[in-house]
Amino acid sequence: MAAAAVEMIHAYSLVHDDMPCMDDDVLRRGKPTVHVEFDQATALLVGDALQSLAFQLLSAPGLLTDEGVQLRMVHTLAQASGSRGMAGGQAIDLESTGKPLDAAELEFMHVHKTGALIRAAVMLGAHCGSELDAGEAASLDRYAKCVGLAFQVVDDVLDAEADSATLGKTAGKDAVQGKATYVTALGLSRAKSLAQDLRAQSLAALAPFGARATRLAQLADFIVLRKF
Amino acid sequence: MAAAAVEMIHAYSLVHDDMPCMDDDVLRRGKPTVHVEFDQATALLVGDALQSLAFQLLSAPGLLTDEGVQLRMVHTLAQASGSRGMAGGQAIDLESTGKPLDAAELEFMHVHKTGALIRAAVMLGAHCGSELDAGEAASLDRYAKCVGLAFQVVDDVLDAEADSATLGKTAGKDAVQGKATYVTALGLSRAKSLAQDLRAQSLAALAPFGARATRLAQLADFIVLRKF
Repeated sequence: MAAAAVEMIHAYSLVHDDMPCMDDDVLRRGKPTVHVEFDQATALLVGDALQSLAFQLLSAPGLLTDEGVQLRMVHTLAQASGSRGMAGGQAIDLESTGKPLDAAELEFMHVHKTGALIRAAVMLGAHCGSELDAGEAASLDRYAKCVGLAFQVVDDVLDAEADSATLGKTAGKDAVQGKATYVTALGLSRAKSLAQDLRAQSLAALAPFGARATRLAQLADFIVLRKF
Repeated sequence: MAAAAVEMIHAYSLVHDDMPCMDDDVLRRGKPTVHVEFDQATALLVGDALQSLAFQLLSAPGLLTDEGVQLRMVHTLAQASGSRGMAGGQAIDLESTGKPLDAAELEFMHVHKTGALIRAAVMLGAHCGSELDAGEAASLDRYAKCVGLAFQVVDDVLDAEADSATLGKTAGKDAVQGKATYVTALGLSRAKSLAQDLRAQSLAALAPFGARATRLAQLADFIVLRKF
């Protein structure tokens, strides 16, 4: 249920980001975007309702026996979604379009735009399991931050290298829209190295957990090694 | 804090509803709407972030000593905001524009579009006070439903009768947009009677609470007797 709530926040953000006043995209996951298939008003309302549904699910009676933990999960997801998380990162992204950004500025933007929700997803998963000590929580958060950034670096590389049919979304849009990416900031070769560095850092952060973190390690590999 | 959370949901819905793909309105509370003052992307993101902030506030650690009650408040607000509440009502409204609706169809639309959030506001207030028995909760919910509908009936009357300067928003838009309203469904005179009936019903529902409900009774009077 926690995973579904995160996915709903993610899905709503994609529906809204694809709208003409934002990225103005017509293709998503290989299909027409919501405002193309239906209309803009529907896309706006679907996104709004999906965000509500995420919090409705996560606050559902009986989801966890510990209601305090459940309340903290709601709070974590709300913080990650809002003005100091995903929505704020999106605003920075819009503000920055057409301006050259260096790698540090890009990192600041992506830590908010995509990183916040990925970190929330990891921490929500942790909330559902056995309690973590402060050191373990910090390690997990470091893992999530590296994986989140790696995701974005790889996304930028794929946008520059792959074609739309493989990606399931419009390829090459970053360059057309004059967006600063890790490829424009670092060049293709250094961007690829950065993705590998972040993969190594994320795996290192999992070391204290040993075999318990196998799935998280596989996730880091999947994110960096994916071709679409 | 609960009141602020409801206000944030309400404010986000206004920002999104004013956008060109929805009601396309340029004036709100006597000022330019958000997409006019800034741009559509900003209006979209501000609305999204306000919704997150509502749930962030309502789930804040230490807001109530009873975390179970707090979790139920989050759930109530999320349900009222989503596809079976406000956002769903808005979708019905868009779907119905240009079609003649009778009073029963109008009620179904408004129970969702504006009524759900008004009911949530009343029930959230109740959650913050001493515990209610089932009969008291049902009475409060009846009060909230009548007040919510009364609000909409009066809104339709004012849109037909008042001017923009008094309303702080564009007057006469319903007729221009071919929207079904209580004035088109019942005529002005019967719409005004309905508002008075709903006021009487809402006050009757408060009877079991005696003087404890004075503020709620004043609110019903305010909603029906307002001139803007």
